[in-house]
Amino acid sequence: MNPHLYAVIMAGGAGTRFWPASRSLRPKQLLALAGKETLLTATVRRLSPRISADRVYVATGAHLLEATAATLPQVPRAQLLAEPAPRNTAPCVAWATATILRRDPDAVVAVFPADHFIADEPAFLEAIDRAVLGADKGLLTTIGIVPTRAETGYGYIEMGERLAPGLHRAAGFVEKPDRARAEQYVASKRYLWNAGMFFFSGAVFMDAVKAHLPAIADFAMRADEAAKTGDESIVVNALFGSLPSISIDHGVMEKEQRIAVAPGDFGWNDVGSWESAWELATKDAHDNGLPPGSVSVDASGNLVVDLTTGPEKKAFALCGVHGLVVVVTDDAALIIPRDRAQDVRAVVDALKANKRDHLL
Amino acid sequence: MNPHLYAVIMAGGAGTRFWPASRSLRPKQLLALAGKETLLTATVRRLSPRISADRVYVATGAHLLEATAATLPQVPRAQLLAEPAPRNTAPCVAWATATILRRDPDAVVAVFPADHFIADEPAFLEAIDRAVLGADKGLLTTIGIVPTRAETGYGYIEMGERLAPGLHRAAGFVEKPDRARAEQYVASKRYLWNAGMFFFSGAVFMDAVKAHLPAIADFAMRADEAAKTGDESIVVNALFGSLPSISIDHGVMEKEQRIAVAPGDFGWNDVGSWESAWELATKDAHDNGLPPGSVSVDASGNLVVDLTTGPEKKAFALCGVHGLVVVVTDDAALIIPRDRAQDVRAVVDALKANKRDHLL
Repeated sequence: MNPHLYAVIMAGGAGTRFWPASRSLRPKQLLALAGKETLLTATVRRLSPRISADRVYVATGAHLLEATAATLPQVPRAQLLAEPAPRNTAPCVAWATATILRRDPDAVVAVFPADHFIADEPAFLEAIDRAVLGADKGLLTTIGIVPTRAETGYGYIEMGERLAPGLHRAAGFVEKPDRARAEQYVASKRYLWNAGMFFFSGAVFMDAVKAHLPAIADFAMRADEAAKTGDESIVVNALFGSLPSISIDHGVMEKEQRIAVAPGDFGWNDVGSWESAWELATKDAHDNGLPPGSVSVDASGNLVVDLTTGPEKKAFALCGVHGLVVVVTDDAALIIPRDRAQDVRAVVDALKANKRDHLL
Repeated sequence: MNPHLYAVIMAGGAGTRFWPASRSLRPKQLLALAGKETLLTATVRRLSPRISADRVYVATGAHLLEATAATLPQVPRAQLLAEPAPRNTAPCVAWATATILRRDPDAVVAVFPADHFIADEPAFLEAIDRAVLGADKGLLTTIGIVPTRAETGYGYIEMGERLAPGLHRAAGFVEKPDRARAEQYVASKRYLWNAGMFFFSGAVFMDAVKAHLPAIADFAMRADEAAKTGDESIVVNALFGSLPSISIDHGVMEKEQRIAVAPGDFGWNDVGSWESAWELATKDAHDNGLPPGSVSVDASGNLVVDLTTGPEKKAFALCGVHGLVVVVTDDAALIIPRDRAQDVRAVVDALKANKRDHLL
């Protein structure tokens, strides 16, 4: 293991798309949407061959701090950074990087979302190794996912000249494309999905933040200074909410020339909706993802998620239904076709309109 | 009130068609499938203007005796008759009639299923009055429901000559017809649905049982004799299981000439499936029958039944689904299209095949 390699896990997501499983105090990364462990636990565990938990930092919302700490007992409590307000990724990553540099001026920082799924973990670790090579060269490096379809819901990264095996200069970041352009991107084999994973020398990154996001750099410096006297939380609480809300992608990567990308092909899934959860579920011969003990009669392509906490687990019986998502919790239940999974937002809006905010 | 009028409620039904709400120890008549009271409670209550609870007798399965007693505290416990085994309606009605005749040799007995719904209760009581008039004339009388559709799932009763206003001689009982014949029946206006309601002088009925079902008459006589010495349950337990399993319709009515029918038109529903439960449910502007606090987005014609017993009632959110039935209990849940409600039997069979009998 590289003793200078640190991880920053971005675990501040809200995740209304997984209602009623996800709630304001139990967002997506704290749910076991792909297997038995939560997405956050899986994120930390699969890094462990390269980055042990004592070198993992987790940025989350202040309201999620206790739940996050309970989920990750192996991560030192002092390495959980509580954001007083959501300000996208640049402020929290700058803050975390300054914190890590205080511990290790030679730190290389790897940034990961907390709520994705990766099927092929050895291939993922190998991609990390290539991306860290880019960071070691002083480049702001990202892992770009080799596309498997003409997805219009993701940003893309264009590959430039080859720097090393599996490491390219990044020719640019591009926004979510329309269908025709997405198909061109995939056909060209030069474009990769932006999965929000970043690798950089801490010092190089902070220089870039100073150049492009001076207010955020100033905040990170003041938080770092205050930490030395035990006053960090006072500074963070006073300043964080007034910082610009901006992503690393927009705020830093797109403004830099010295950027690189390591293509990765390791069964990545952003677990973006109940449709993704169905894709990742263990399914029967009729493509039903059902709890143990369920029965189905002429039913296919359904996903049932039982999150009730009663003394007995329910037996679900599905008959004559196809492509449905059914999610049951102690206080709520959702029934929606898989192909309308994105409309969970409309359900959440309806609950708000009906003053049922306590269910969100 | 006619002090010689008694009711026998047939409450032995199993009702697998309402799984997972109905169970072997909680069959259909013990469920509140149409309003807040159970179907059995409603059956006894709506008779009360004509037959008070102290003149009501209830025949049920021995395994349902405690639940039935708990549901009907107003009915004297000694008037609940526990059938050791299901033997259709003739044996239990003969037994109940003998029991009633021991109390009142001039008794007129009215027999009702425990698990139907009636919308227009005053019209129902008025039909009872006409049927009792038939019984008073010494006729075995039934109420026949004026058909509202060419139903192939019910037996029909053909009306003969008029005996009194709203009372006809019955020309015959006919089996469930095919579609073409059902349409002829409805068009003729001479056929009525057989809803399993019977009215007779107790003495006349017992004579008919002696003539057509001598083994059952013999049993009823021996049970009656034993009751006088406190040994009734010994005789019933010894003999009941060996009696022929036969209905009043087949065993008595179809073999008699002195039969009559009183047409009734009072919003009768046999609550035969979840489809019927949806018909009877309170529904929103999009024909959804949902628990309070539910939300729907582009959803119509659904029925949701929440029978969970937790501290909080669930909020159900339906989005993009139409014509579904969703039933949730503490240990099971069913999702099935309304128009496949009859396939609940297939679900029950699948549960048996999977050795999940404890859920039935």
